[in-house]
Amino acid sequence: MESLVLDANQVVKKLEEFIKKTISDAGVNHAIVGLSGGIDSSLACYLSVGALGAENVFGVRMPYKTSSQESLNHAQLVIDALGIHSETIPITEIADPLIIRFPDMSAVRKGNIMARSRMIVLYDRSAAFKGLVMGTGNKTEELLGYTTLFGDSACALNPLGDLYKTQVRQLAKFVGVPKVIISKPPTADLWMGQTDEGELGFTYAEVDQLLFYLVDGHHTPQDCLDAGFAESFVQTVVKIIQRTRFKRTLPPIAYLDGNYDFVNDAEWAR
Amino acid sequence: MESLVLDANQVVKKLEEFIKKTISDAGVNHAIVGLSGGIDSSLACYLSVGALGAENVFGVRMPYKTSSQESLNHAQLVIDALGIHSETIPITEIADPLIIRFPDMSAVRKGNIMARSRMIVLYDRSAAFKGLVMGTGNKTEELLGYTTLFGDSACALNPLGDLYKTQVRQLAKFVGVPKVIISKPPTADLWMGQTDEGELGFTYAEVDQLLFYLVDGHHTPQDCLDAGFAESFVQTVVKIIQRTRFKRTLPPIAYLDGNYDFVNDAEWAR
Repeated sequence: MESLVLDANQVVKKLEEFIKKTISDAGVNHAIVGLSGGIDSSLACYLSVGALGAENVFGVRMPYKTSSQESLNHAQLVIDALGIHSETIPITEIADPLIIRFPDMSAVRKGNIMARSRMIVLYDRSAAFKGLVMGTGNKTEELLGYTTLFGDSACALNPLGDLYKTQVRQLAKFVGVPKVIISKPPTADLWMGQTDEGELGFTYAEVDQLLFYLVDGHHTPQDCLDAGFAESFVQTVVKIIQRTRFKRTLPPIAYLDGNYDFVNDAEWAR
Repeated sequence: MESLVLDANQVVKKLEEFIKKTISDAGVNHAIVGLSGGIDSSLACYLSVGALGAENVFGVRMPYKTSSQESLNHAQLVIDALGIHSETIPITEIADPLIIRFPDMSAVRKGNIMARSRMIVLYDRSAAFKGLVMGTGNKTEELLGYTTLFGDSACALNPLGDLYKTQVRQLAKFVGVPKVIISKPPTADLWMGQTDEGELGFTYAEVDQLLFYLVDGHHTPQDCLDAGFAESFVQTVVKIIQRTRFKRTLPPIAYLDGNYDFVNDAEWAR
């Protein structure tokens, strides 16, 4: 089986080129990064600074009243280490009117409201600073749909979208993300004690191996069983991928007379 | 030149089939429609009721403090005529914390915050009612990017996405949308006196003819000039289409080793 290990130096160069070109093609200079204190947004921020320079990167901390102080501190570590502009805009006032109106709502609904409130803030800051909102979602999350649609998955470009979580860790070490951020358990910090791996029911190390074999290897679920992955694990992951397809595609349009997506790629429209 | 006029009876049947199938494929029964009091969301609501029955459609009115009372009244006309469930959830409290924090922001930034606040409400209601958020954006708006990304353009399915505004008017008459809604000037109602046509700088009747020739006719901008459209008008519209491409596509991902979009369409992943 091929390995998840990347040529870090080469990949970082490629990702920085991607950021530089996409931002410049959009006719702007700045990147806006929502800093959660976690490894993904930290790596996205380091890559943005590598691509654009610290003076062109804005880090935004957006705590909710239940967010951990540790998360805020870790985001500040990144801001200080890179010397970027930063703002702290709490989302409590934005999210709470709806959360209070429906006091019986589930933790998932609350989490979605928080993630979407952060999107509103980031997109407003990107309009104010004439920049693009940087994506911070990795390939593991995207494939598992472990994101909030129109929330944390909303972005103008995503440098991490083809990196599994395991690979995010490798690159984060390589670019110098603070160790305390790399070594803590990943969490969306939407409620106390939440961890990604606790919610998903498997570790990133495990699922990345399976996803890498399935997706990058262009194998079928049956191939995965033949390769020794446990049947219930394969079934669970394949079902999650199926169920979350809508998060990775544009909403279906009722086409009357064939698709008109070609307009986006027509020569005159570029 | 072919005509924008549709076979209304046949198209309505097709759109209702689309709604029925997409909702049922998602394993839910309900449609959630944000009712602005305008013609697009009214038509989307009539089609949803035609597809699913009034008992399965939820209309949500989401006024901001500056929204016109007339818009609210027109939305109520639709609710009453169709006999659907309805809620009124003001977005002022959600939108205002950010608007007040940055008092110098432009009307466009305010409008985007309002549109995204409404998205948050609609998606939360769709979670509460186990339904899908119905799209209400027409083809003219989509092609001109006259929408808020992750705001009014955010939806789970869009029955109007292949209908030009002119065609929306034809179908709205056909299904019985109240005349007062059909005849008033279209407006996003984001600020006082705003009208779509005033902001765009041309009428829907004019631009629909051009877009129909360009897009549905698969013609080039040069063909449009040869067909008699004014050069400055063609240039303006083509530039708008180019500039707003990012609103009609998924954000670019930095692929390391080829695209993995195939996963969404792999046989095992459906």
